[in-house]
Amino acid sequence: KKTFKIAAIPGDGIGNEVLPEGLRVVEAAARKWGLDLSFETIEWASCDYYLQHGKMMPDDWFERLKGFDALYFGAVGWPDKVPDHISLWGSLLKFRRDFDQYVNIRPVRLFPGVPCPLAGREPGDIDFVVIRENTEGEYSSLGGRMFEGTEHEFVLQESVFTRRGVDRILKYAFDLAQTRERKQLTAATKSNGMAVSMPYWDERVAAMAEKYPEIKWDKQHIDILCARFVLQPDRFDVVVASNLFGDILSDLGPACAGTIGIAPSANLNPERNFPSLFEPVHGSAPDIYGRNIANPIAMIWSGALMLDFLGNGDERYKAAHDGILRAIEQVIAEGPVTPDLGGKASTQEVGKAVADAL
Amino acid sequence: KKTFKIAAIPGDGIGNEVLPEGLRVVEAAARKWGLDLSFETIEWASCDYYLQHGKMMPDDWFERLKGFDALYFGAVGWPDKVPDHISLWGSLLKFRRDFDQYVNIRPVRLFPGVPCPLAGREPGDIDFVVIRENTEGEYSSLGGRMFEGTEHEFVLQESVFTRRGVDRILKYAFDLAQTRERKQLTAATKSNGMAVSMPYWDERVAAMAEKYPEIKWDKQHIDILCARFVLQPDRFDVVVASNLFGDILSDLGPACAGTIGIAPSANLNPERNFPSLFEPVHGSAPDIYGRNIANPIAMIWSGALMLDFLGNGDERYKAAHDGILRAIEQVIAEGPVTPDLGGKASTQEVGKAVADAL
Ligand SMILES: CC(C)[C@H](C(=O)O)[C@@H](O)C(=O)O
Ligand SMILES: CC(C)[C@H](C(=O)O)[C@@H](O)C(=O)O
Repeated sequence: KKTFKIAAIPGDGIGNEVLPEGLRVVEAAARKWGLDLSFETIEWASCDYYLQHGKMMPDDWFERLKGFDALYFGAVGWPDKVPDHISLWGSLLKFRRDFDQYVNIRPVRLFPGVPCPLAGREPGDIDFVVIRENTEGEYSSLGGRMFEGTEHEFVLQESVFTRRGVDRILKYAFDLAQTRERKQLTAATKSNGMAVSMPYWDERVAAMAEKYPEIKWDKQHIDILCARFVLQPDRFDVVVASNLFGDILSDLGPACAGTIGIAPSANLNPERNFPSLFEPVHGSAPDIYGRNIANPIAMIWSGALMLDFLGNGDERYKAAHDGILRAIEQVIAEGPVTPDLGGKASTQEVGKAVADAL
Repeated sequence: KKTFKIAAIPGDGIGNEVLPEGLRVVEAAARKWGLDLSFETIEWASCDYYLQHGKMMPDDWFERLKGFDALYFGAVGWPDKVPDHISLWGSLLKFRRDFDQYVNIRPVRLFPGVPCPLAGREPGDIDFVVIRENTEGEYSSLGGRMFEGTEHEFVLQESVFTRRGVDRILKYAFDLAQTRERKQLTAATKSNGMAVSMPYWDERVAAMAEKYPEIKWDKQHIDILCARFVLQPDRFDVVVASNLFGDILSDLGPACAGTIGIAPSANLNPERNFPSLFEPVHGSAPDIYGRNIANPIAMIWSGALMLDFLGNGDERYKAAHDGILRAIEQVIAEGPVTPDLGGKASTQEVGKAVADAL
């Protein structure tokens, strides 16, 4: 009987407020369903660590983390302390890439009780999942600057699309669509503007689609696709996208479904060669840090995704995932909820309420 | 007394339906306010032309167009006939780049009478303008493919940010913000993910902002910025963005304000060394072409922007612009309107109604 090792990494800002609530619920679920979990808290991977050590993480971070089964991650970034590209490329984006977490799953759902910013939309109208490529594409540090400091200065930045990288995320997305009732897939593109990378992406989408004759699929340019998230959110089922487009769609989707405060994500290495990472979609939100008003539900829901993935089919873990989701639904519908959902509760009150509802 | 030469270019699909209505209104305004305009219709720059000639435009397109003051452009693209990256890079994107139309202005406004997809938003809540860089950035055909056809295949695509290109669009946007009541500017970025280009963009934004102490400005990552277009559209005034981010925001903005069918754009060469281009934000929409249900208002509004720019301060042209805008407002509020606005009118009925309302 295996004990799953979980690294709990708060990071920056409200990461420190929501992670304890996530842990509270995950531990409650572990007791209830008899799950075998062990936890270790990691104090590095934060901007404060950077201010002390001149780097986001110790040099042996890879060795120290690779033995974990999962990283349960709060949020990182505090631009007034450390520029974002340094803090993120020094932690979260390193994890995603070096642990080959190439699948980023971001479910979007409108829950009963959540005030929807879209007029006339009901729970059930918005229920789709964004599958985001998570290791390459537009997120790259390749490139550089020429004629620095002169009026002729310019910067080149590479986007990188490999067949391996593109095909494996497409396969994951098509496989997922195959298991869903509507069997529908939309691929985000922008092949009319980005004339090298995106035509290649389109080509691989078409090739992959041939292997899935049952799937109804289309491709949509990112500009009109964003517009349709607002105008026709009910038409989506599985949306697969490159790293940048997936990033955009997975913030926009939850906004359309009421709040980014509940949106979870799973950064998976499906082969389980390395730890996978589970984190809220929202960031560290320095502007609200310290007030205990951050919504812990994204963190809690990410915990449920973690248990589901760890269990890998084990019924107890599945039950824990489903139980947490039900508890979340109940608390969102009946309260207490944080201010982003129109309530007055604190982060801790919501965390306790979900744990109790289990 | 100068006569302005306008090239009318329908392009593909509903470009052919909306352009005549734009011309109808622009010509009516010319009669009413005594404007000096001449028109010539250009039958190339379309996918049908490509099917006959193997290229989107004749080789001497630049010579033939450069003497015009403005290009009044429908829409281009018909993916079933010609792949989008070929049709667009062979026409519209060539115009923007070779005629150095580096400013793309895209106003977003919620009009009385337009059903808003955002709950509880009133006209007045949404009134901002997206200023999009239009000649470089992520839109590039630099790059290529390696190990083609093998499993090791990969593609590199360059984004290009020059100091000249970045600074001139920022200057335009800050200057514009300076003329507006709220004096507020938001710069779209993604410097946490795109680690070379976007930190440079941020740096130039900060440098430019120093010259405009009266402007309240901030920068927001594109993911959360998209979310805020939905959640807090009232907080924006001038939004300045790179080519790709401007593309996304200027489709999303109009969607939040009800329909892309009314969103206009002006692709300006502010120095007037080359013709500027005026076109709807919407595309050629092959799916609805031939049914005469396309909303011509984006085309008509683009015509108003054209007159304003051509006049360059001339009161008659200003009056024509304002008159067309009032006529648009009236027709949207009182009808007739096309199906995208909940009406049953045809493209032509709406065009006539706006012309009559002048
Ligand atoms: C058709 C396409 C190349 C174009 C763009 O992306 O610029 C369009 O979406 C626009 O916004 O004008
Ligand atoms: C913080 C940032 C680098 C990150 C991303 O863009 O991937 C975040 O926005 C996310 O969506 O996980």
